[in-house]
Amino acid sequence: MTVPYSPGLEGVVAAQTEISEVDGQNGRLIYRGGYLIHEVADRSFEEIAHLLWSGELASGAQLGEFNQKLTDRRALVPAARAALSGLPTDADPMDALRTLLSAQGAAPGCPKPSLDDAIAATAVTPTAIAAYYRHSRGEPAIEPRADLGHAANFLYMLDGREPDPDRVRYLQSYLVLLADHGLNASTFTARVVCSTGSDLWSSVVAAVGALKGPAHGGAATAAMNMIERVGGPDRAEQFVIDTLNRKERLMGFGHRVYRTYDPRAKILRDLCKEANPGFYDVAFKVEETALRELLARHPERPNATNVDYYSAGVLAAAGFPTEYFASVFAASRMAGWTAHILEYTTKDGRIIRPASEWTGPDPEKRAAVLTT
Amino acid sequence: MTVPYSPGLEGVVAAQTEISEVDGQNGRLIYRGGYLIHEVADRSFEEIAHLLWSGELASGAQLGEFNQKLTDRRALVPAARAALSGLPTDADPMDALRTLLSAQGAAPGCPKPSLDDAIAATAVTPTAIAAYYRHSRGEPAIEPRADLGHAANFLYMLDGREPDPDRVRYLQSYLVLLADHGLNASTFTARVVCSTGSDLWSSVVAAVGALKGPAHGGAATAAMNMIERVGGPDRAEQFVIDTLNRKERLMGFGHRVYRTYDPRAKILRDLCKEANPGFYDVAFKVEETALRELLARHPERPNATNVDYYSAGVLAAAGFPTEYFASVFAASRMAGWTAHILEYTTKDGRIIRPASEWTGPDPEKRAAVLTT
Repeated sequence: MTVPYSPGLEGVVAAQTEISEVDGQNGRLIYRGGYLIHEVADRSFEEIAHLLWSGELASGAQLGEFNQKLTDRRALVPAARAALSGLPTDADPMDALRTLLSAQGAAPGCPKPSLDDAIAATAVTPTAIAAYYRHSRGEPAIEPRADLGHAANFLYMLDGREPDPDRVRYLQSYLVLLADHGLNASTFTARVVCSTGSDLWSSVVAAVGALKGPAHGGAATAAMNMIERVGGPDRAEQFVIDTLNRKERLMGFGHRVYRTYDPRAKILRDLCKEANPGFYDVAFKVEETALRELLARHPERPNATNVDYYSAGVLAAAGFPTEYFASVFAASRMAGWTAHILEYTTKDGRIIRPASEWTGPDPEKRAAVLTT
Repeated sequence: MTVPYSPGLEGVVAAQTEISEVDGQNGRLIYRGGYLIHEVADRSFEEIAHLLWSGELASGAQLGEFNQKLTDRRALVPAARAALSGLPTDADPMDALRTLLSAQGAAPGCPKPSLDDAIAATAVTPTAIAAYYRHSRGEPAIEPRADLGHAANFLYMLDGREPDPDRVRYLQSYLVLLADHGLNASTFTARVVCSTGSDLWSSVVAAVGALKGPAHGGAATAAMNMIERVGGPDRAEQFVIDTLNRKERLMGFGHRVYRTYDPRAKILRDLCKEANPGFYDVAFKVEETALRELLARHPERPNATNVDYYSAGVLAAAGFPTEYFASVFAASRMAGWTAHILEYTTKDGRIIRPASEWTGPDPEKRAAVLTT
């Protein structure tokens, strides 16, 4: 039996998973173990990584031991340092991350993905991002500090200063909220790659490449650029109306799965209000107008604000330049990607090899086709 | 409407394409333009790349100009050279290729995939493979030679000697025959990555990661290892029977799509007989016994010899060590990957974001689940 072509594979179930569930109808995001996103939003990124990998929220000594394992794997290996040294300073940060992770994972053979690999890839991602951030400015990389948590150390490696607790909290919340989200394009990419029996590093390098796309990890950057173009809350209404009249797309609205408000966007909106009031004032006014105008123009379309919209304000307040938003997204989603890889290679493992529909000429009719 | 889970997406049409068609029922492989694989098997790799990218077989001045474009893009950029210098000498060659291509493609922004990118990625792949081959032996890379064709230059860069025409012919045939093959896992990976709006280099780096898997690009290596274990034609029959009695898998038989003999395997078998008679004598006897025994044990299963089986003997005769077979596969399939990327980003472009089925606990029942 052949299932007909559904563009974008919309509605095609391509995985059975217990890592996360996007319940778009009810605006719920469920993490492994059955946790609603708002129930775990105040946890540390490390706790969420542990949850996605093992199904359990660690605590006490167990969590301490787990944190130690992550801390131990933060450093770049010589291959990644060499790759860093040769990168052009104006490369897209996602190209740098893709290259450094690939070099970091270069090893003999094709090992079966393991929890140890998941820990290593997740631990080193902020180091790789920060090292390229420094490299692009002509500055030497800052070595990770073992006494800082994952989020705090990430910020520390950008400029060598211990970040204030609010910035750590903004980043931590973002990392927790974006850590997994069903079968998005980059997670699906990781699953396809590991389905061939390939290793974890190949799978996450591929996922970074998918996340780079403007329609995926590039969306928060686009939202920030849009809000900056608006300039002020008093210009929001006119901006939205002009944009829609020109039939151009507003950044930050609509999602393939959610039919109501994205629960992560709600939390990030509140955080953005506190963390980045300048951004928030403009963004809120744009959102208000956008949702009203979109409803009036396309009442049939669900058009809730997506997670990237207020993410932009939160990431800027945490201290990241706009062009690094997708990289920070990768640092968060690395937990989810690796959880999916471990799940797929442990439970399912069948090679993902869909069918295609031929739209070219039939060989028997080729001569005729080519001469007309 | 939701389409239920089909493990491995078997039978799910995930693309409409005119790049190639695997007609498994009739044992036909059709390349773009409607060419049956045996009709173009004697062409150069450059001609096939041109065909897959443009739909036309170039000739004369047009082909000369096109070859020049490929020749011009063979060199590694400084970023790739730096990455090479730091790679461990015992890494899997596919990890090296993944890293060097990623470094080669590191650039500002996220350019839309172009024919120029396709040419650049395809032209540089043999250089990257050969450079790592040299690096792993502690030898300096050999610069490409502009007066040699794609296949001849590939072999030249391994040892700095002009290869004899037979070896070039073996490699050329392999590169032509493997250049595209419908929606295999690595090609599908490339399409998913570029569907997010990501660039061509991110897409092909991801595809290399997928091809690395033993169930995909690693199959020829596994076939070679198996034939070497057999030792001689007189031990073939016993080996096959013992392997099947132990319920172990024979390498090189069976395919998701073909229900009859893979047309590429036919051509490679004849070539292998000429190029590598030592391998052929064993492989042919193993094949004969395997097909007979598999039919007797599983009459319901189609079990034709796949392309990887005789590929192994041909690649060895061309001069590649066993651990490089997947890399040479990548050098060939690069033409197909990039053709699919150009097709997807030109024609379709919708983000590939399938659905998933939640198998974890319901949040409302979580407490109960966790305490039982």
